[in-house]
Amino acid sequence: MIKTPAYAAPNATSPLAPFNIERREPGPREVLIDILYCGVCHSDIHQARDGWGGSIFPMVPGHEIVGRIARVGSQVERFKVGEAVGVGCFVDSCRQCPSCRAGDEQYCDFGMSGTYNSYERNPEDHRFDKTRPTYGGYSTCITVDADYVLRIPESIPLDRAAPLLCAGITTYSPLKHFGVKAGDRVAVVGLGGLGHMAVKLAAAMGAHVTVLSTSESKRDDALALGAQAFAATRDGTVFKEQANRFDFVVDTVSAEHDYNLYLNLLKLDGTMILLGIPEQPEAVSAGALIRKRRRLAGSMIGGIRETQEMLDFCATHGVASDIELIRMDQINEAYERMLRSDVRYRFVIDIATLERPA
Amino acid sequence: MIKTPAYAAPNATSPLAPFNIERREPGPREVLIDILYCGVCHSDIHQARDGWGGSIFPMVPGHEIVGRIARVGSQVERFKVGEAVGVGCFVDSCRQCPSCRAGDEQYCDFGMSGTYNSYERNPEDHRFDKTRPTYGGYSTCITVDADYVLRIPESIPLDRAAPLLCAGITTYSPLKHFGVKAGDRVAVVGLGGLGHMAVKLAAAMGAHVTVLSTSESKRDDALALGAQAFAATRDGTVFKEQANRFDFVVDTVSAEHDYNLYLNLLKLDGTMILLGIPEQPEAVSAGALIRKRRRLAGSMIGGIRETQEMLDFCATHGVASDIELIRMDQINEAYERMLRSDVRYRFVIDIATLERPA
Repeated sequence: MIKTPAYAAPNATSPLAPFNIERREPGPREVLIDILYCGVCHSDIHQARDGWGGSIFPMVPGHEIVGRIARVGSQVERFKVGEAVGVGCFVDSCRQCPSCRAGDEQYCDFGMSGTYNSYERNPEDHRFDKTRPTYGGYSTCITVDADYVLRIPESIPLDRAAPLLCAGITTYSPLKHFGVKAGDRVAVVGLGGLGHMAVKLAAAMGAHVTVLSTSESKRDDALALGAQAFAATRDGTVFKEQANRFDFVVDTVSAEHDYNLYLNLLKLDGTMILLGIPEQPEAVSAGALIRKRRRLAGSMIGGIRETQEMLDFCATHGVASDIELIRMDQINEAYERMLRSDVRYRFVIDIATLERPA
Repeated sequence: MIKTPAYAAPNATSPLAPFNIERREPGPREVLIDILYCGVCHSDIHQARDGWGGSIFPMVPGHEIVGRIARVGSQVERFKVGEAVGVGCFVDSCRQCPSCRAGDEQYCDFGMSGTYNSYERNPEDHRFDKTRPTYGGYSTCITVDADYVLRIPESIPLDRAAPLLCAGITTYSPLKHFGVKAGDRVAVVGLGGLGHMAVKLAAAMGAHVTVLSTSESKRDDALALGAQAFAATRDGTVFKEQANRFDFVVDTVSAEHDYNLYLNLLKLDGTMILLGIPEQPEAVSAGALIRKRRRLAGSMIGGIRETQEMLDFCATHGVASDIELIRMDQINEAYERMLRSDVRYRFVIDIATLERPA
């Protein structure tokens, strides 16, 4: 076993603090990754605070992991020591259900093994081993099955690559799956970690992107990120002026809001894609869908093959996240700032600041 | 002008009663149709009772019209006197917007001319003429632009063809548009006028159809109509037993119900299609959509080309509506029975029972 310094939430209410874990030596099909950077996702906070219930403590969060290969198992041919790699929201799945076989491991019928706050699987039958919780990227290294490891193109700055592993694929996957193409009019609702990636990726796909945000304060950022237009939603005029105008609405907001206002922005056969999960269900008017044969859809991260495709797309199109690099010991402050939406647009932990054991 | 006996709702609260209207002589591109049968749609009641607001009185309802060509305009080549034809939910549209040009006239950007409770258009510029209300099929004849007239295959009994013009196309269009194919598992929610057509059409497309209805009483009918399975929803067990099982849910219910229960019946990438419009918006859980990349969609009737395709499909597959033929003077009683869901599965008026003027 490999002694591994980490930061953990000891329970749902205490601050995160230094915590020592052990990583296993990589098996024949596994790799050991020295972690360099780890992005801080909103779901880290939700899970560390047990906002969705069922959290496993102590919890080492982090599923936007970038590092370099430190060791490879005897049967691993895809990776070499020193290569830049990434790990996203899951580290294993059943590998046998239709979703896994189709490369949609995120929808595994038996549940994926989350990178943290979940359980490892037995190598033999790929069933959960409830004695071995998964620990995420707020740590100096991680051992992962090579099939669940992504290659990071060297042209992407590694710190700015980290959020691609969750925020990037969460926005890229639905844009591709629902067929966003050059010339399409795409509205991005909310300009946070997900929203800023949706803007960059949709613009890179050639779409005409409009950012819809509650306040004017993000107009300049929206345009700088690649949007062609911006509209503040607070006074409501945009919902009349832009009705029936968009092929897609990408809704990244998890605060309460009226879906029907945004559905009415869609033209005939338009699709609104939900990426955020408000605490309570939102009211949907059947008429808003029926009148223009609109669709309201959801999407969750992406599979391994598609995540690699996204990373390669980002390298080709010069896309990376906009980040604020922080020290590991700033994580609790970072959580506080994220709860105030005070981050442009993702915190990334410089794991070099996590002290190695003496 | 052609004196035309009809039945009309004089206002939102009085019973329907005999009423005389005038039809215009057919213009060069129009046909005059002697009406034989007219189906009775739930929306006839909604509009006659001004349930959606904005109703135009006196109102002659009826948009499931079947008859025979009585006269043709000088430029009409598609139809001959005596041919069996139909008119559905609209008799005109702007003809110039992208929806009209694509054959999706039902989504006309400027609004279609409903077959009743709407306005005719000027032949020159296709704008609404607010001095000329449209009157529907509770009448002995109708003059319609030939481009908005459907050919009824002679193999379909004409009385049983009438409901295809609304209930038929309303269910056929989304089944085709959203890609139902042989072997797909389709759940039909609610077994009324729409539901019974959804069952017949989906079964004719080769789908494996399950009817979900509140009570056991419709099990035998469901199976006789072509469904392979039936489940009563009242005790709720079906929502656990059939979770993640269906490619499509076709929801024909306009009473209040919990969309999320039905969304969870869909497998990965499944689509729930709303055809009914509950009076109040229904709560939708983003998680139910996101967890399995599901889609909630709506659809409204169908275009002229697709309606013809549906009629030809019905002829090929031996599909027609199950009806109860009524006299014109039974219409008020029929409305009462429909409000109690006491019809299997569509009332059709025998227009021969509408007395011609002396």
